[in-house]
Amino acid sequence: MSYNTIGQLFRLTTFGESHGPAIGCVIDGCPPGLEIEAAEIRIELERRATGRSRHTSQRREKDDVQILSGVFEGRTTGTPIALLVQNTDAKSKDYENIRKQFRPGHADFTYWKKYGFRDYRGGGRSSARETTMRVAAGAVARKWLKLNCGIEIQGWLAQLGPIRTDEVMDWNSIEANPFFCPNPEKVAELEVFMDRLRKSGDSVGARVNVIARNVPPGLGAPVYGKLDAELASAMMGINAAKGVEIGAGFDSVAQNGTEHRDEMTTEGFLSNHAGGILGGISSGQDVLVSTAFKPTSSLRIPCRGLDVEGNEVEVVTKGRHDPCVGIRATPIVEAMLALVLMDHVLRHRAQNG
Amino acid sequence: MSYNTIGQLFRLTTFGESHGPAIGCVIDGCPPGLEIEAAEIRIELERRATGRSRHTSQRREKDDVQILSGVFEGRTTGTPIALLVQNTDAKSKDYENIRKQFRPGHADFTYWKKYGFRDYRGGGRSSARETTMRVAAGAVARKWLKLNCGIEIQGWLAQLGPIRTDEVMDWNSIEANPFFCPNPEKVAELEVFMDRLRKSGDSVGARVNVIARNVPPGLGAPVYGKLDAELASAMMGINAAKGVEIGAGFDSVAQNGTEHRDEMTTEGFLSNHAGGILGGISSGQDVLVSTAFKPTSSLRIPCRGLDVEGNEVEVVTKGRHDPCVGIRATPIVEAMLALVLMDHVLRHRAQNG
Amino acid sequence: MSYNTIGQLFRLTTFGESHGPAIGCVIDGCPPGLEIEAAEIRIELERRATGRSRHTSQRREKDDVQILSGVFEGRTTGTPIALLVQNTDAKSKDYENIRKQFRPGHADFTYWKKYGFRDYRGGGRSSARETTMRVAAGAVARKWLKLNCGIEIQGWLAQLGPIRTDEVMDWNSIEANPFFCPNPEKVAELEVFMDRLRKSGDSVGARVNVIARNVPPGLGAPVYGKLDAELASAMMGINAAKGVEIGAGFDSVAQNGTEHRDEMTTEGFLSNHAGGILGGISSGQDVLVSTAFKPTSSLRIPCRGLDVEGNEVEVVTKGRHDPCVGIRATPIVEAMLALVLMDHVLRHRAQNG
Amino acid sequence: MSYNTIGQLFRLTTFGESHGPAIGCVIDGCPPGLEIEAAEIRIELERRATGRSRHTSQRREKDDVQILSGVFEGRTTGTPIALLVQNTDAKSKDYENIRKQFRPGHADFTYWKKYGFRDYRGGGRSSARETTMRVAAGAVARKWLKLNCGIEIQGWLAQLGPIRTDEVMDWNSIEANPFFCPNPEKVAELEVFMDRLRKSGDSVGARVNVIARNVPPGLGAPVYGKLDAELASAMMGINAAKGVEIGAGFDSVAQNGTEHRDEMTTEGFLSNHAGGILGGISSGQDVLVSTAFKPTSSLRIPCRGLDVEGNEVEVVTKGRHDPCVGIRATPIVEAMLALVLMDHVLRHRAQNG
Repeated sequence: MSYNTIGQLFRLTTFGESHGPAIGCVIDGCPPGLEIEAAEIRIELERRATGRSRHTSQRREKDDVQILSGVFEGRTTGTPIALLVQNTDAKSKDYENIRKQFRPGHADFTYWKKYGFRDYRGGGRSSARETTMRVAAGAVARKWLKLNCGIEIQGWLAQLGPIRTDEVMDWNSIEANPFFCPNPEKVAELEVFMDRLRKSGDSVGARVNVIARNVPPGLGAPVYGKLDAELASAMMGINAAKGVEIGAGFDSVAQNGTEHRDEMTTEGFLSNHAGGILGGISSGQDVLVSTAFKPTSSLRIPCRGLDVEGNEVEVVTKGRHDPCVGIRATPIVEAMLALVLMDHVLRHRAQNG
Repeated sequence: MSYNTIGQLFRLTTFGESHGPAIGCVIDGCPPGLEIEAAEIRIELERRATGRSRHTSQRREKDDVQILSGVFEGRTTGTPIALLVQNTDAKSKDYENIRKQFRPGHADFTYWKKYGFRDYRGGGRSSARETTMRVAAGAVARKWLKLNCGIEIQGWLAQLGPIRTDEVMDWNSIEANPFFCPNPEKVAELEVFMDRLRKSGDSVGARVNVIARNVPPGLGAPVYGKLDAELASAMMGINAAKGVEIGAGFDSVAQNGTEHRDEMTTEGFLSNHAGGILGGISSGQDVLVSTAFKPTSSLRIPCRGLDVEGNEVEVVTKGRHDPCVGIRATPIVEAMLALVLMDHVLRHRAQNG
Repeated sequence: MSYNTIGQLFRLTTFGESHGPAIGCVIDGCPPGLEIEAAEIRIELERRATGRSRHTSQRREKDDVQILSGVFEGRTTGTPIALLVQNTDAKSKDYENIRKQFRPGHADFTYWKKYGFRDYRGGGRSSARETTMRVAAGAVARKWLKLNCGIEIQGWLAQLGPIRTDEVMDWNSIEANPFFCPNPEKVAELEVFMDRLRKSGDSVGARVNVIARNVPPGLGAPVYGKLDAELASAMMGINAAKGVEIGAGFDSVAQNGTEHRDEMTTEGFLSNHAGGILGGISSGQDVLVSTAFKPTSSLRIPCRGLDVEGNEVEVVTKGRHDPCVGIRATPIVEAMLALVLMDHVLRHRAQNG
Repeated sequence: MSYNTIGQLFRLTTFGESHGPAIGCVIDGCPPGLEIEAAEIRIELERRATGRSRHTSQRREKDDVQILSGVFEGRTTGTPIALLVQNTDAKSKDYENIRKQFRPGHADFTYWKKYGFRDYRGGGRSSARETTMRVAAGAVARKWLKLNCGIEIQGWLAQLGPIRTDEVMDWNSIEANPFFCPNPEKVAELEVFMDRLRKSGDSVGARVNVIARNVPPGLGAPVYGKLDAELASAMMGINAAKGVEIGAGFDSVAQNGTEHRDEMTTEGFLSNHAGGILGGISSGQDVLVSTAFKPTSSLRIPCRGLDVEGNEVEVVTKGRHDPCVGIRATPIVEAMLALVLMDHVLRHRAQNG
């Protein structure tokens, strides 16, 4: 059962609440012999950390990850790798006012309905803080994929509210701004937009694209272990995700077959509408995934909601929140892609030697 | 491992190739005591069958499903339900010419790359014929969900190429035309479009929406067993799917939080941008999913491709193919929704009594 | 969930009741390219068939297995292999008298308690007829293991009631008598014992040993995927099994460490008390497993029991039953060992390349 | 994949090496609302701790377990429960001499063969220290089972080397001596035996029995989710286990059916040779399991072995070791029984409401 575990052969199990003592994870199934140290993981965690710019939540977590097991003398042993991060900058008092309220658009309500009980502090388990561990585990997967298959993964902000940044103008620029925007000319526009948004107290959605290069053909499996199906699950399972596309995605709807099909020559494919996946199996082309994120529901602008007794209340959210979760989503999307590919590389070689 | 199995507690395993002797499935985990007979399943199979109109493939399979086990004296026993359908109208000769060729945009190429060997007849295991069994198993799940939870599921064609039919004008009209179009006024337009397309030898994409009503709150689970993540996987795993949205989907990207969040009053929610799922758990609102299907890649219009020895060839596909697989996708999408919900109802009551 | 599925990468799902129309299975995860045909599987099925001698049930099933999918032009394709056997010699009328009774010592009672409903004919799903499919799938695994790893598997009757036949006097003799007895001198004694038992109307237990040779070191995994733990599960899951031992088994209890530990030299191990498994991982020595089977509970000698309404009744079982299920257990035990080893070979190469 | 995870709905994942910084676990799938605190878990850990008497290893770990997540305001929330224990009394220097040697009978050799790399300190991941977490998680399961089903679990030492203590003379005496011996008159004999053994430098095997009372009928599932099969796996997966029996176990081999079958009257069953399980499903009788443990392989008495380069060496183990691991196995066996039953209670109610 995949409540808190993802992957079948490279398995990530996460635990921890936003305002509990710690968050952590167990990575099971990592091949032995990979050189890895905590410092490498911290570099990835820094990319998704809050408080890097004024455009994200001002909670400042050190994310000082520790390796508790599975690595000996700097190398993975093949046994479970446990990672732990202490929570240090939780301000639980901010949440006193929503202790008995449900924020519209938030998991507050559904956790209550499911479990009849919840840790309301900072969203508890439903907090995006959980994604820290996805990025941490993703760092291990990425390193292995790079060293063993040459696979390289890069995400970018493709749209923020009305501002489209789909096209990558400069791959190097992505890491050079707080938005993971691939078009240096759009950064100023994004800053102005976000400053205005933050002041208004509102939030906005975003879309993040990701590419994996050098993916070998043959990853994925018919018919319920398809690579695209598992990518869809991995991306839709990120907090706030509402849509996932592979390759041409929803644009396929209005395409003709003569346009969509990617012709092949001895030079390779002539296009990539498929996003690198045919029949659920990688074709050797770049894998392309796009994910839509909704606007955050925790706003200081009041709205109509209910409390735990069913009474109507005006809901106002205090605390430190991201006005656009999509800004920090790029490293998370990359991590999810790495985790799925890693799992499928192991699965492929199990059946196919 | 979910190669050919979907679900964790209500588990569907399918087998069979398009032109093999039979296709079939095993449903494991069905609660005992459900009254079910083959005739009920056949009604659902008839909805997805080819040859119902001139707009779909002219292969005419009887889909005369047999129940081989798990049902005794008309009721499920709690043991595995095996269903079998003999293949009767396979014309394998049609595929002689692609025996050593890869159709661009088709799983031909990736199966070859993965396994080094394939059943090329009718697409073998990658054929949409496999979805027969999804619909068959979905019929069992649907009946149980209706009787035990009151859940009702309905899909419809939301777009076909350039023609948008998102809005349901008349729920009853959906079953009254071969497109599952919910707007009777658009049917003629669809027919003209499809007749022209068929003559041209080209194909086109489509989008299918589906709704589930009376879904109880609490289905789904954080953080890797989310209802929306598993729906995304289920839908993206259908042949030709390239995108999945929950609720507002990609429209969320340009929305503000004040617009997107669904306010709550004692009367219920004031909107449903969330598509009935918050934090991966059902909220009690209608569950809404939209799936994009690409245009079929098997065309009689020639294109550039490769053969199994790597030589460039002109690829032309003969045989009987759907010019728009989206037309028959509605019952499949409904079935996948039923299978996922069924699994989650069982999962929920396991943990929550 | 492993209700009717065993294995993680080489997965067997079985279906069918003793007196239903058919029994069958789906094997998922088999590597592509294995040459296999129905005739080879039938040879293994013949070894476990009833009616081979007067010492087993006189039900005579042809077990004419068909391959429905996953094999094309004589080779596995990597997609699910479905096998089907029609039930032809079921005499359901024999079971009319136990329709509303529970046979003491039989799953009749627990199925009723679990599901509130059961197929009482021939034990339904709890019948040893299900093991036909274990042997069928085991034949596929065995062939692959032999060709790819050189692994060879052989079981034998180690004890029948009071008669001990642990020691293998002649490997060739095992297949030369209906008991799989490895000591030709004991066969006459077994025949006399069984003839007397059959006439008495009583049944008796048995113990079956099995060895796998040429098992590579490294199969299995700490700490909940141990090879011995999974062998224990596989063997205990055979109908009527009540005990499992690896290597020295229960004899280890009275051993000292200096006796039990298998010393190693450059020539290899000096003994094999471990049964080829250390810390849950194969050592390269022969894998040795012993399984205890209880006496059949279906007897024509009356006993005290209950009916479905809770009344005390005298229970007498008619129909055709094995007076010692252990006699036919040898091929089943071999099959289970093959299935577990096959799964672990694939699992090992997933993680360890 | 069950490398380091056990259970399907109540899932335990453990991590940590004997001499690493910490050991821990994640329990996923625990129902919400269970009151649990670290102090309750510590009581169970104390029962299995080393250093309680002179008859066990003198490593003295505090096992000061912390709850890192999944419990809020003293109650489980339904999200993953993470437990952590720091390792404090590890003396890694003791293992310098076996850094490049394999102890005969130990997992040293097979880990090396599997992974090509190992944490040799204290056995690393293969150490019985991992069972701390089984007992910790078992404490959670036990409490839930007691409160929700009335299930009670008790284990005892049934044999130690040549000394048989199968029969429970006094249930209260079990916790009153360091051996979990149920016969007060045998304790002195055990002490003398162990003192002599310890001085000799040798080790010995043991057998541990366990009973679960008030197990409801219906737990378990045909045919690969059998309760007895999963108990066999759980017990055989404990370090040093070599055999498992349910009910009459290997004694069934020499029994007749008229003796073995447990007759039923309106008063209940007249015997319990089945050990509470029929056809893989609990019958409502007491569940009875017996497990054989081999003698420890880490001895100071020299023996012939190999080093990592394949040279013959004399192997002598220093460090602190249990001369009979079976002495501390009782709480572990109880925990495994609790974990399996807990999982099956949840599985049963998923399918059967």
